[in-house]
Amino acid sequence: MQLARVVGDVVTTIKDPALTGIALLVIQPIASSGEAVGRSLVAVDSIGAGVGETVFFVRGKEASFPFYPPEVPADAGIVGIVDHWTVAPAAAAANDEDRGERTGALGAPRAMKKD
Amino acid sequence: MQLARVVGDVVTTIKDPALTGIALLVIQPIASSGEAVGRSLVAVDSIGAGVGETVFFVRGKEASFPFYPPEVPADAGIVGIVDHWTVAPAAAAANDEDRGERTGALGAPRAMKKD
Amino acid sequence: MQLARVVGDVVTTIKDPALTGIALLVIQPIASSGEAVGRSLVAVDSIGAGVGETVFFVRGKEASFPFYPPEVPADAGIVGIVDHWTVAPAAAAANDEDRGERTGALGAPRAMKKD
Amino acid sequence: MQLARVVGDVVTTIKDPALTGIALLVIQPIASSGEAVGRSLVAVDSIGAGVGETVFFVRGKEASFPFYPPEVPADAGIVGIVDHWTVAPAAAAANDEDRGERTGALGAPRAMKKD
Amino acid sequence: MQLARVVGDVVTTIKDPALTGIALLVIQPIASSGEAVGRSLVAVDSIGAGVGETVFFVRGKEASFPFYPPEVPADAGIVGIVDHWTVAPAAAAANDEDRGERTGALGAPRAMKKD
Repeated sequence: MQLARVVGDVVTTIKDPALTGIALLVIQPIASSGEAVGRSLVAVDSIGAGVGETVFFVRGKEASFPFYPPEVPADAGIVGIVDHWTVAPAAAAANDEDRGERTGALGAPRAMKKD
Repeated sequence: MQLARVVGDVVTTIKDPALTGIALLVIQPIASSGEAVGRSLVAVDSIGAGVGETVFFVRGKEASFPFYPPEVPADAGIVGIVDHWTVAPAAAAANDEDRGERTGALGAPRAMKKD
Repeated sequence: MQLARVVGDVVTTIKDPALTGIALLVIQPIASSGEAVGRSLVAVDSIGAGVGETVFFVRGKEASFPFYPPEVPADAGIVGIVDHWTVAPAAAAANDEDRGERTGALGAPRAMKKD
Repeated sequence: MQLARVVGDVVTTIKDPALTGIALLVIQPIASSGEAVGRSLVAVDSIGAGVGETVFFVRGKEASFPFYPPEVPADAGIVGIVDHWTVAPAAAAANDEDRGERTGALGAPRAMKKD
Repeated sequence: MQLARVVGDVVTTIKDPALTGIALLVIQPIASSGEAVGRSLVAVDSIGAGVGETVFFVRGKEASFPFYPPEVPADAGIVGIVDHWTVAPAAAAANDEDRGERTGALGAPRAMKKD
């Protein structure tokens, strides 16, 4: 999985019927430093993520697992909203520049929306 | 999934029998800014997209779900025609340059072709 | 799928038994402009493609569909021989340089080898 | 699979229910020379890896095999902790610069945690 | 599939039980010119390849087919040892520089180890 920021959404009228009623969000993958890396994607969302939130998403057929059945034709899906993440400098420093502890604080934990 | 623009089509006489009667379109992936990114692909189309339209497509075995059965040997398939998409500047600005709200207006919503 | 040119073949004595009798071709992916892009691959061939021909191929488990059963351990397979393809300049020009209509004429359509 | 170093972890409250109780680690892929290559990922861990350890991980649906059932929506999973690896200079030297034998010594073998 | 050279191996004590007894080799993908391209990988081996040999390998779930059952969590597997390969200059020259016939002679064919 990769970390990403939700940056927008997609409105589509004509689509595969199996995608009806499923939120399609534009996400920007980010590195563990928090910087944007690579291309933005369109991901299906099963957990209620919103624009501005940091999430982690899964690629491939696994993206359709939360909707099973039916078989949703999706290859990227948001599967978690990130409260925060930590990168240990000792571990990162072996081959990188040592940048001190990086903690991605993304706001207080939210209540569970799905169970 | 990724956004893409339909830019052409492919004519092929000799092909796997399971591809018979399926439209093969040349698509150019685009970023959320609307710019072309990466290589063009050949995708199967199950929703009636045409040259010049903006679509979103799925990669992998999922591309063959709309044709099931039979098992179509395809790894890229158009699954939606995009009416428009929005990228929120506040979300995008954290690590990018702030470019103001970008809205991809791609013409008025079309009638549903498939149901 | 992607367009590619068949540029060679691979001879192998020791291999997975499920690959016995299957042609292994070296292919070079090409862009819709006809230029080589990215790395060459080794692909299985179920339609009788030969060196010098332009084909389109599929990646992933889908490459083994034409041989099912048995389960062939392949991740790239030629599934069509391309007669020609067209890229519309109006569609391509939005974010690219306008290069006029590009048509990839690859010889006259051939008779169907497989049915 | 690829070699990687475990560099951090991810805390998430809202997530797909199938991910409940599964450790989510931030890993940095490394080359056989030990240098970081490419983007960091979030991987599920079924073998008890910790920050600072060198592991190898698998991409794709295979990442969820150790948890089956249920179907975990994951596309990267740690499947082994690396004791050490060896790259033979004679083999590497054909097209690379000859760098002498490189051995990645990562500490003494540990006791098996899982059986 | 891609061509690769076997350059090393990986020793691991703690791993997913389904990987027990399976050889883990470090491979370096090579282009059809014989040059190293891209990152080295860790691949499972079902055909008895050794350091210094040129092989071709498969990515994805297909890598685990030779071990089925059980379900091995692997995403790269060596499926053939290459005797030699040929790239035809006429085919390669259309968009490349013409380099004359390139033949990758990798020693005489070996006896089949597996049947």
